[in-house]
Formats: sequence, C-alpha cells, structure tokens
Amino acid sequence: MISLQPFAISDDFVPAIAPFAADQAALDQALLPVQWFICQRSNLVVTQAGLAFPLATTLAEVGIAVLRTQFLGYLKGQPCIAAEWDAGLALPERLTLMGLRDLHGQVGEDLFAIASRAVQIVDWDRTHQYCGHCGTPMTQLPTERSKRCPTCDLRQYPRLSPAVIMLIFKGEQLLLARSPRFRNGMYSVLAGFVEPGESLEETVAREVREEVGIEIKNIRYFGSQPWPFPNSLMVGFTAEYASGTITPAPEEIEDAAWFEKSSLPPVPGELSIARKLIDWFVSR
Amino acid sequence: MISLQPFAISDDFVPAIAPFAADQAALDQALLPVQWFICQRSNLVVTQAGLAFPLATTLAEVGIAVLRTQFLGYLKGQPCIAAEWDAGLALPERLTLMGLRDLHGQVGEDLFAIASRAVQIVDWDRTHQYCGHCGTPMTQLPTERSKRCPTCDLRQYPRLSPAVIMLIFKGEQLLLARSPRFRNGMYSVLAGFVEPGESLEETVAREVREEVGIEIKNIRYFGSQPWPFPNSLMVGFTAEYASGTITPAPEEIEDAAWFEKSSLPPVPGELSIARKLIDWFVSR
Repeated sequence: MISLQPFAISDDFVPAIAPFAADQAALDQALLPVQWFICQRSNLVVTQAGLAFPLATTLAEVGIAVLRTQFLGYLKGQPCIAAEWDAGLALPERLTLMGLRDLHGQVGEDLFAIASRAVQIVDWDRTHQYCGHCGTPMTQLPTERSKRCPTCDLRQYPRLSPAVIMLIFKGEQLLLARSPRFRNGMYSVLAGFVEPGESLEETVAREVREEVGIEIKNIRYFGSQPWPFPNSLMVGFTAEYASGTITPAPEEIEDAAWFEKSSLPPVPGELSIARKLIDWFVSR
Repeated sequence: MISLQPFAISDDFVPAIAPFAADQAALDQALLPVQWFICQRSNLVVTQAGLAFPLATTLAEVGIAVLRTQFLGYLKGQPCIAAEWDAGLALPERLTLMGLRDLHGQVGEDLFAIASRAVQIVDWDRTHQYCGHCGTPMTQLPTERSKRCPTCDLRQYPRLSPAVIMLIFKGEQLLLARSPRFRNGMYSVLAGFVEPGESLEETVAREVREEVGIEIKNIRYFGSQPWPFPNSLMVGFTAEYASGTITPAPEEIEDAAWFEKSSLPPVPGELSIARKLIDWFVSR
C-alpha cells in the first residue's frame, strides 16, 4: 500500500452527511463564513493575493455568480461548499482562475484535497442535470449524494472512471511512451480505461497489447489513487516483459522505447501515480 | 493475481471495433446468423429448449421486439449483438427470460461472459439516451463505444462503478456480516462503492469503519473481477483487525460477527469474489 497523498484528507475534515445541496437560506442564518470551492472544469477560483480560496458568508460577498452548489462538509468546523462558476460572467478583479494541478503545494494539503473532490463533484453535478434514460430534469436527494429521476426513478451517484496505469520492465530497463497529447519531450508509463467485462489485470494486458504490441507476465498490484481530472480512479500495476517487439499504435502512441534508469526522459510530476511507479523502479 | 474466470472471454471472441450500433440492413445483406443477447436489466432471453441464446439472421425471425441494439463482436466468426427487450411486449412461447446469475454453468463459458458484457452495455445504452448536461438526445459515435451530445459535445463511455470488497481477519477468525437484502441466512464479507477523492485502500478503511465500527491494518490487494449486476468493478482486499468492537450500522448491517473457519454460515456462490476471498482464507 503506497502513500495516499496528495489527495487524502485529514481527520480535520468531516464530510457532509445531509443535506447535500447547499441551502443558502440556512447559510445566511448561520452566519458562518464558508470556504468556497468555485470550479470551472478543472480550474478553481482563488484570490489573487496569497492564492487562497474565497472565504465569505455569501456568494454575493464573494462577488461571483454560480450555476449550482454542493455541500462538501466541514473543515475544522468551517462549512466547505463546491460551486460551478457561471463562466459566461466576468470575475471580480481580485479573483483569478487557477488549474487544480497548479494549486498543489500552493494551498494547504487538506484544502488541496477538498478542492480535488470539489472538481469531481461539480463535474458530476454538471453532467447529471437530466435523466440519461428519459431526459427529465433530475432532482438531488436530500439524504445522500445522489440524484433521482422523478419520472423513471433512475438513480445516479458521483461517477468514477476506473483506469489502470502500469510500469512494464525488462531486466533493468523500463518501458516509457509518448502520447501526442503530452507536453514537449515528456514520456510516461502506459495507462488506459477499464472496459465492461474486464478484470483490472485483463485491462493491463489488453492496453499493453493495443498500445505497444507486446505481451507481459507477472502483473502485480502497486497502489491506487484518485485522479480528479475530472473523475478517474487510477489503479497502478507493475509487470514484466514476456514477448514481442515494441510497435506503437498509430495516433495513440507517438513513440515508445525501453529506457535505462540512468538516462530517463522528462517524466510526469510528483502528483501522479505514474511518477510513483517510475520512482519505485529507479530506486529498486 | 487470482483467476479471472468466470467473466473472462477466450481468444475465440473478437470484440467489435466499429461500427458499434448494429446495422440491421448490413446484417440482412450478410445473411450470417446472429447470436442475440436480448436483455431486460440483468435477465436474458433464452430458448426454453436447451437454454440457448436465440440464433437467427433477423430479429423478426427471433419473433421479438427490441428497443435498440449494440454490436458486441464475433464469436468464432459469428456476429454477437446485444439488444434491449421491449418489456411491454409478450415473449413468443418458445422463449423465456432467465437471470444472468442463473445462466452460469448452463451455457458455454464464452457465451456466459459475452452475456455479462451484453447486460452492462445494454444498461449503459438504456441510461445514456439523453445528455445529462443539457437533455438533448445523444448520438452513438460510429468509431467507438461512446455517445456524444450534438448540442454541448458531452461524451459518455460505458460506465463502471468501482467497488471494494474485503475479508477482515483476526487470527484464525474472519468477519462476516449480513445485509437485510441477503437471502435467508447468508453472510458475506464487507463491500462498498468508492467515493470521489478516495484511493481504494481509503475506501476499504472507511467502509469497515462505517459498517461495523472497527479499525483495520495491513490492507492488501487480493484480485479484481467485473460484477455485471449491472456495472460494478469489484476490487478485493484482505486486512487484519486492529482495534474496536463490532458495532453493526443500523439499516445497512443486520448482524456481523467473527466466525471460525470450521463453522461458517451459508456464504455467496462461486461466481463472486466474496467466495474466492472466503475460500482463500479457509484454505490458507
């Protein structure tokens, strides 16, 4: 079991039980300042000075219009509310938008972890306004983080997309590949989403076969972590090369090769499980 | 890595690449008999005689009306198509509806595994007819198993709900619990869905704390398998008791206790990872 940072929250945070839809009337009465996690996709609204999340009793006080809110819980007794920014409107001058990834190390650890949950829950809220089965507007249940269709009774819970990420090695070399979507020069380990009917280990073998055309053996669990961009659950594995020659899948993989520990290309940052896998192999 | 049966499919099956929406006109021309996996939730249409899935060139020949179809792939060259039964209509007399679970061992292994994928894909198709963001009818992309909203560009892929399932032990005893939903007398290991922001290990610890009020240590990965009722991905763990007294959560857990290997209550069937965990502990 690898370390759960940076997305783990300490006991200082008490998650919301109910109600889950934030009630502005109740907040107005409570007069408690709220920590606002105002999202626009994977970006959050922060104050220009000091990079803090807005702290205010009402949204009017923050000076920003939002589309909807979700109550997250209490951090040291302070209410935390996620909201989706109405991106059509302007931000007040003292506020700015910053990517969740760039906020890592810039705000407290608990605040960063709560912000990452806010991004996921707001994304779920945004994409589950209507019933996928019959098109009726969904209603938020007061007693749990879920939505229900008043017409056909379909229930929806916050969505997670499970994915595998795997370090493949051959003796002292590891396999790294480059997607055309990566920033300049960066390589990483292979990854892919789980499909219906597959075990995680089957996904690992299939993705390696599809992306680089080789067969692997000794697939072993490494660890797991959330990846809130916007809603992946990453499950890491290691595996040994078994047979075949690296043949990158056109369009998906720009380049793939065996690398020596001592001469690695640029790799992903410390937030990622990709980096934890690579660091594990290098220090082994 | 535990055995991937019973949901693994052999190399005799070639999954669909594209198009994914089955085109009846093309099928009519091809004149190939199709293996039909006609679903209604977790039930499938089978022939009364011999419990086989209908094999026919057209749905008219099967004599059944369906709401929509999804092309799955080829089993030994034979097209496999999933469909959702229009449950408002009657079934021809020679056909009947049977639960996926009850079909295990009754049809071939590949057919059972393909049927389990059919259930998941039909459930996804049924619940993603409309865009969850803006309510517009979604369109099936021809090139991949996904849907796109023509208005707001939201993409949806077959949904999986990751869940953990864990065997907790204390020396030679294991923890088993009973949900009010279980059949008469049955006990099983604990399980629960992963929430946004959690690693799998955090989910394991949280669920054990919430359901029976104890703390655990040494959480170890056991294996994974799909659980198509209708779309779970089960990730199994083992863990040791650390502290606390069993205190079942009201409403969720009817009873929970430490059991000796030699005096187990009725437990789940062999299809489940729950049973694999229990068998592992007993034979350890």
